[in-house]
Amino acid sequence: MSTVFLRVDGEPVEGQGAALATDRGLGYGDGVFRTMRLRAGAIPAWALHRAKLVADAGRIGLAIGSEALDRLERDLGDLVAVCSEATVRITVTAGSGPRGYRRSPSTAARILLRAESTDDLPTLAGESVAVRLCDLRLSFQPRLAGVKHLNRLEQVLARAEWDDPATAEGLMLDVEDTLVCGTMSNLFIVEGERLSTPLIDRCGVAGVQRHRILEWARRNGVEAVEQRLPAERLHGEVSVLVSNSVLGVRWVSHVDQRALAGKPTMFDALTEWVDRA
Amino acid sequence: MSTVFLRVDGEPVEGQGAALATDRGLGYGDGVFRTMRLRAGAIPAWALHRAKLVADAGRIGLAIGSEALDRLERDLGDLVAVCSEATVRITVTAGSGPRGYRRSPSTAARILLRAESTDDLPTLAGESVAVRLCDLRLSFQPRLAGVKHLNRLEQVLARAEWDDPATAEGLMLDVEDTLVCGTMSNLFIVEGERLSTPLIDRCGVAGVQRHRILEWARRNGVEAVEQRLPAERLHGEVSVLVSNSVLGVRWVSHVDQRALAGKPTMFDALTEWVDRA
Repeated sequence: MSTVFLRVDGEPVEGQGAALATDRGLGYGDGVFRTMRLRAGAIPAWALHRAKLVADAGRIGLAIGSEALDRLERDLGDLVAVCSEATVRITVTAGSGPRGYRRSPSTAARILLRAESTDDLPTLAGESVAVRLCDLRLSFQPRLAGVKHLNRLEQVLARAEWDDPATAEGLMLDVEDTLVCGTMSNLFIVEGERLSTPLIDRCGVAGVQRHRILEWARRNGVEAVEQRLPAERLHGEVSVLVSNSVLGVRWVSHVDQRALAGKPTMFDALTEWVDRA
Repeated sequence: MSTVFLRVDGEPVEGQGAALATDRGLGYGDGVFRTMRLRAGAIPAWALHRAKLVADAGRIGLAIGSEALDRLERDLGDLVAVCSEATVRITVTAGSGPRGYRRSPSTAARILLRAESTDDLPTLAGESVAVRLCDLRLSFQPRLAGVKHLNRLEQVLARAEWDDPATAEGLMLDVEDTLVCGTMSNLFIVEGERLSTPLIDRCGVAGVQRHRILEWARRNGVEAVEQRLPAERLHGEVSVLVSNSVLGVRWVSHVDQRALAGKPTMFDALTEWVDRA
């Protein structure tokens, strides 16, 4: 593990053992997070990430004050001063409090900032990836759908289904066998010049990269719809994209060893725009 | 907050800030826990709690070695040396590791032990409680049903539905409007001399106190069934019990201000046995 930067509420983490051991993020998964890429000293789409962090926290009843956001941005400035390439994770928890599910009225959000060397990134050289379909089915919880919260055991268990480094990602279905997302990515089906991506209203995370791909489509007159996508859609003459804010956008060459239609014609134009921050 | 004892892997927590900030329990809710009562220097049903901790960890693929269990029991001995009454929480996480849902093969479980003064216990004087029905519906995830894991946002959100201290607990339904449990307890419906408790095969936690109540029934020839309990069952001439390992067993006087049938005739015999450790 090569953590290059670690702060909690703007302070170095040493000496915060007692605070973190009683943190509600650790106790109950009571918090939200984002993972991003620091690239050439900047975080692409930072404003969107910041807005999504605040919105996701709000969805679970946590307020992030403007002072806390200012301090976070100063911390990000300090990070950039020591390193220009990293993966960055920002975690917002409900802070420390007494035992029990009830948040204390005095509970204040806690912000953890962690950056790691990009040497840790899975070697996903090239622009295509092979994926698998996971066995674990995502449960429906509309109250949390779309939110990148800290309750991620479903993703942990799904990721534990394979160990082959040639498989970069696992696609996940819900209990109705509808496509939702990858363990760490959103997904798009491409048919000709048309993009489809799962509705994220019952489960799944609505990532920033997904948002940006939909924005690219809107700006460029490309038809893009959010809809239910039964797993069988993968068996048609389709291409598939997976996206997240660390790895960008990749096209899927194979699902469980079965070749898909390959690289979409829109791929270069799309990634050129998305990678441009 | 009056934490009276806090250790991580047998060590005082000071100086473990970096370890905890990168813990997978905090990052993904990747772990399990138990909450217990320390009473007159002993934890009632400790052997059951220990077995359930190991079993729950196993359900999410975490092994707790015998050395780690021995160290935990030494820590509990140290706790008893300084305090004889407390609430005790044991958390087992997947430890620290690189970013990402995949557990590193070298990942070792981490054990946190936290004890708090019982002054923090909600004042639930008396043997009966008033409860409410929560709006939030529990989602189905059979892979995790029964396990007391760290993904507890549903319980946090349900507990945030009320603030009236006269309401001690919230009963939770699943998406099919079937009774499952309380936010922090298991529940039993009592009709005459018959006990019914929800099947915990799709969602919910199967607690140690629930296990012991079923054991009491078996030993005493009391009929006890695990089954689907539609919410309407609360509208019959029934009594209801809620149970957990901190508060013991309570009978429910009211659900949303509506009076139930009252104290079950079996209550005193049951609680006398359960409280006897």
